[in-house]
Amino acid sequence: MSEAPPIVATMIGDPCGIGPEIVVKALAEGCGDVRHLLIGDASVVGAAVELARAKFAVRPIRALAEARFEPGCLEVLDPGTLGPRDVTVGRVSAVCGRAAAKWWDMATALARAGEVDAIVKAPVNSEAMREAGVAAQSGVQPGRTFLFLITGPLRVVHLTDHIPLREVFGHVRKDAILDLIRLIDRSLRQWGVAAPRIGVAGLNPHAYGDEERLEIGPAVEAARGEGMDAQGPVPPDSLFRLCAEGAHDCVIAHYHDQGHIAVKTWRFEGNCAVMLGEPFLRLSVAHGTAFDIAGQGRADHRSMASALRTAAAFARGEGFPAA
Amino acid sequence: MSEAPPIVATMIGDPCGIGPEIVVKALAEGCGDVRHLLIGDASVVGAAVELARAKFAVRPIRALAEARFEPGCLEVLDPGTLGPRDVTVGRVSAVCGRAAAKWWDMATALARAGEVDAIVKAPVNSEAMREAGVAAQSGVQPGRTFLFLITGPLRVVHLTDHIPLREVFGHVRKDAILDLIRLIDRSLRQWGVAAPRIGVAGLNPHAYGDEERLEIGPAVEAARGEGMDAQGPVPPDSLFRLCAEGAHDCVIAHYHDQGHIAVKTWRFEGNCAVMLGEPFLRLSVAHGTAFDIAGQGRADHRSMASALRTAAAFARGEGFPAA
Repeated sequence: MSEAPPIVATMIGDPCGIGPEIVVKALAEGCGDVRHLLIGDASVVGAAVELARAKFAVRPIRALAEARFEPGCLEVLDPGTLGPRDVTVGRVSAVCGRAAAKWWDMATALARAGEVDAIVKAPVNSEAMREAGVAAQSGVQPGRTFLFLITGPLRVVHLTDHIPLREVFGHVRKDAILDLIRLIDRSLRQWGVAAPRIGVAGLNPHAYGDEERLEIGPAVEAARGEGMDAQGPVPPDSLFRLCAEGAHDCVIAHYHDQGHIAVKTWRFEGNCAVMLGEPFLRLSVAHGTAFDIAGQGRADHRSMASALRTAAAFARGEGFPAA
Repeated sequence: MSEAPPIVATMIGDPCGIGPEIVVKALAEGCGDVRHLLIGDASVVGAAVELARAKFAVRPIRALAEARFEPGCLEVLDPGTLGPRDVTVGRVSAVCGRAAAKWWDMATALARAGEVDAIVKAPVNSEAMREAGVAAQSGVQPGRTFLFLITGPLRVVHLTDHIPLREVFGHVRKDAILDLIRLIDRSLRQWGVAAPRIGVAGLNPHAYGDEERLEIGPAVEAARGEGMDAQGPVPPDSLFRLCAEGAHDCVIAHYHDQGHIAVKTWRFEGNCAVMLGEPFLRLSVAHGTAFDIAGQGRADHRSMASALRTAAAFARGEGFPAA
């Protein structure tokens, strides 16, 4: 008797955007030996299956317990939020924004209850959510959750996120960095990376400055003292390249653009994001709803495929998926 | 009667490093329709020609006036600084450090006098120069000269260079940025880029912050008011990718790593550096002397080839060379 594979629950995103079609296209490629559940509107998924010319049957369910996870069938946990005339592809809609928020709440609740092993969020539309009066739900919580961008072998955790560059210095502190190294080490081990090799960026050119000497270096030393494989401070202009070439399993960037410039300049396609520090495994893609090309079958599903494959591999404890 | 092509003078670098061999290998590929002059030691160049199995004759000359620039012949302006036993490949040598400094002084003097149209510097060894008691000669002079890194279509001018990140904010000033846009516009036009499209990075995530509003935005507006094609502030994590994809002829980074992370992560090989703001055209490569592999014929000459091709194209007023 083998244990049942993990469940990855994917919220289909704003139904007016490219979310449903990229989810279906990614799933049609096969995304790991897991049980895939969709959360959203079953007829929207049905339309996406037609658009993608995929061979899936679509089966709406009202509760996870009804799911049979049969091959060739997409099970859609559908609370019946939307009526048949609520969706106009490519158009901002408060009703659809509210629906997406509700579906994501359901996903989060299932993950929190341990009913599913990972949740993946397709793009939602911030304007639609604002019109619906619902919160964006997705922000990094400073000091508690951290954006972990993954694009193939280049994997970057951000110590800080959307704050002015001037304010970064106050966060580059030994304790905060050490805590983050510990969190990365613990999370990656849980997801199947045996002995995570963690590179830590310097803050200044050539990693030469006060912050390196007083904060970053001591944090790395302390982590090594605790038995973790941390390296640094590494000159920021070398670190990301070294990571992409395989020298590290993941690296720490101290500020938004230190990491984002590397990731977006290196290879924009196929990146996905893990929210590190959540009590459950939660992933998303870095792009938006692309209303301008939604419903045309032209949307690039590589980032979503990367998110689904990463979710599956992490949930199975297999480490990073092959690129 | 056609005008004689420009002269590009290349200093061969520290004779114990990879400089001489990468210069010869690059020249063997042909690097633009210019007259190439080498400055250094003729027997060192001879050894590099043998190592590279190149088909060049080597002709030592004592003064530029003696140069005949015949095809298949490398003319080496050689002041006779080194004796036959002064060079041990792969070994730090004060004598060789001093020789390289002297050769570079000669190159600079020729450029300053207008006798040559561009000078290119192969790698020197900072330890050898320190032992020789000569200055590094190569630093950016803040507010006057600016490091311009070029790797194919990704071309980045740095407003500041080797200063702590904390000190960058004091330099992100409307006047300084406007002056730099003007300098780039003027230089690129002189080198053959008809209407330079200059992208300017923001400083903060998504280019949203005080510096964008108070300094960078107004500088870009002023430049546009003067008829220049400046764009920005552009979100830093998009700008370099956009440049690599052809949206800009060159972009401004405000600090060392903003530009260097992009360039080194995107494509390390084949990048070269122009010192912008000098009264003459001066280029170098971004790598060092690589003593560990010198003399083995294994050194990668792509950066040097890029420097020579760029020097030739700029000196001829042809704009950026084809990648």
